[in-house]
Amino acid sequence: MPRVHHITAEQAHCRWDRHLPPVIDVDPGDSIVFETPDAVNYQIDRESESSILTTLDFDPIHQVNGPVFVRGAEPGDTLVVEIVDIKPIDWGWTAIIPDFGLLQQDDAYREPYLHIWDLSSGSYAEFKPGIRVPFEPFCGVMAVAPDSDDSLITLPPRANGGNVDCKLAQPGTSVFLPVLTEGALFSLGDVHAAQGDGEVCGSAIECQATVTVQIELMKGHQLPEMAISVPGKLPGSWNTGGWMVTTAHGPDLFDASQQAVRYMIDYLVRSRSLSMQEAYVLCSACVDLKISEIVDAPNWLVSAAFPLGIFSRL
Amino acid sequence: MPRVHHITAEQAHCRWDRHLPPVIDVDPGDSIVFETPDAVNYQIDRESESSILTTLDFDPIHQVNGPVFVRGAEPGDTLVVEIVDIKPIDWGWTAIIPDFGLLQQDDAYREPYLHIWDLSSGSYAEFKPGIRVPFEPFCGVMAVAPDSDDSLITLPPRANGGNVDCKLAQPGTSVFLPVLTEGALFSLGDVHAAQGDGEVCGSAIECQATVTVQIELMKGHQLPEMAISVPGKLPGSWNTGGWMVTTAHGPDLFDASQQAVRYMIDYLVRSRSLSMQEAYVLCSACVDLKISEIVDAPNWLVSAAFPLGIFSRL
Repeated sequence: MPRVHHITAEQAHCRWDRHLPPVIDVDPGDSIVFETPDAVNYQIDRESESSILTTLDFDPIHQVNGPVFVRGAEPGDTLVVEIVDIKPIDWGWTAIIPDFGLLQQDDAYREPYLHIWDLSSGSYAEFKPGIRVPFEPFCGVMAVAPDSDDSLITLPPRANGGNVDCKLAQPGTSVFLPVLTEGALFSLGDVHAAQGDGEVCGSAIECQATVTVQIELMKGHQLPEMAISVPGKLPGSWNTGGWMVTTAHGPDLFDASQQAVRYMIDYLVRSRSLSMQEAYVLCSACVDLKISEIVDAPNWLVSAAFPLGIFSRL
Repeated sequence: MPRVHHITAEQAHCRWDRHLPPVIDVDPGDSIVFETPDAVNYQIDRESESSILTTLDFDPIHQVNGPVFVRGAEPGDTLVVEIVDIKPIDWGWTAIIPDFGLLQQDDAYREPYLHIWDLSSGSYAEFKPGIRVPFEPFCGVMAVAPDSDDSLITLPPRANGGNVDCKLAQPGTSVFLPVLTEGALFSLGDVHAAQGDGEVCGSAIECQATVTVQIELMKGHQLPEMAISVPGKLPGSWNTGGWMVTTAHGPDLFDASQQAVRYMIDYLVRSRSLSMQEAYVLCSACVDLKISEIVDAPNWLVSAAFPLGIFSRL
């Protein structure tokens, strides 16, 4: 008989380490309800101002919940995490943190900038009156324990998953992770109410949340890195208000991505009366970075697509 | 009174060169109907076999139609090309060409491989029975003349546009290009009946077509590179059959893109009884490469999304 387990916000850790003791043991078929802190473990609250960003303690980043020991999981298997439900709380934040993010060298983004979002509608994030980003919630961080004895920071994604920031893993999808140690030792956290592909300013719509998943196991077949099965439409298809797309060409995808985002910020500032910081934050929450072509040497093309439906038609 | 102009398949060229004489002069508001050859100017026909790829003449690649002189267009303006309609003919091709494409170093793709698609339905490309890719047609190449006196090959995208291979520019969208020389000297060609973001094997569903556009001009404001305005949903939203998403992490977006495509090919070969070459060709036609995150140093994450709706449910 499958069971439902609960993991509290305090049952959390901030390193990938196969020696961490599991907080619960589950069987394949069981469900788990996680109460997840935000990525910075409550260092930012809804009254915070931009100055908080200069004193952020990075040691507890990311705060993730677990680990969960899955009975029967062994190296060589694939862990399947069915994302059942993700409910953000009633506010969230996005920050421009100095020396972080895709445009960190640009003069306009050298000062800390914090935006607090109103999530109280339960279905969209309000940036300010007339600008609403529909919820497309997912866990920025999902991982199993690594196959080494190191204790690893969670910032970069790795072979064990981690801070993948992949917006496609929304409720209804199945996430596949390679099992690298006995019991898998699965953790998740860092919920984003919404994010554009790229997460360009370095944070999404960060929030505390309640996350429900069901755990399954594929024995004897291992996928090499995280994969996701999406049953219906991809995120983004909610949007019927049209898109503005900027493009940038060049021999380096990173540089072209920077350039395409700069073009989009220019467009938003010029056409929507936003500050550069506001536009950069909105790009992190909404812009999808696409690799249009990666074969026509010496130049590739990156497209940045912005959903105009977030602006009211008033 | 706006006019409708016609450009034949023979009114074509294969270099970006501001000294090429225009084939027609148009006014803003006029429409143009282009009969476009395929990218290789008829060197491949529907009876061709893979061996044709070893003797391809690259000199006439790409064959594009024009140039069109737009009266009143001057450097500093933006040319607006409204994509009215794109009608592919009844067949198309996709090729794995040795030493070309994202996985050109992999042993499986060192031999030439040509796939001929049946486009006769007028709404989808049939790969083989049970595998149908819906039409999402666009011009792989759209460009104005460059601002230099050089005669440039068309393979890489450049500041003047060119071989941008951006699938977002489908009928109903508006394409913006910077005017770099008097009259703009606009050309288009290289129609793809469908393509995934990335065009990973190096060619899409290449075809001859009839393309109708309307020309407009924005005086006195210049966008720095090609941009596109999409009035409704982005391409891909047609698909309701679910998606398989592979991901790959690493410090280089190009390497991660290669890896994500390899994972997808592995999945298709394993689960859909396809050869590696067939799977690579299908990825070029259907897989969208997305930059999930580009900020969590030292590792970025690239996702490859494959639309499972192209497989029949039989």
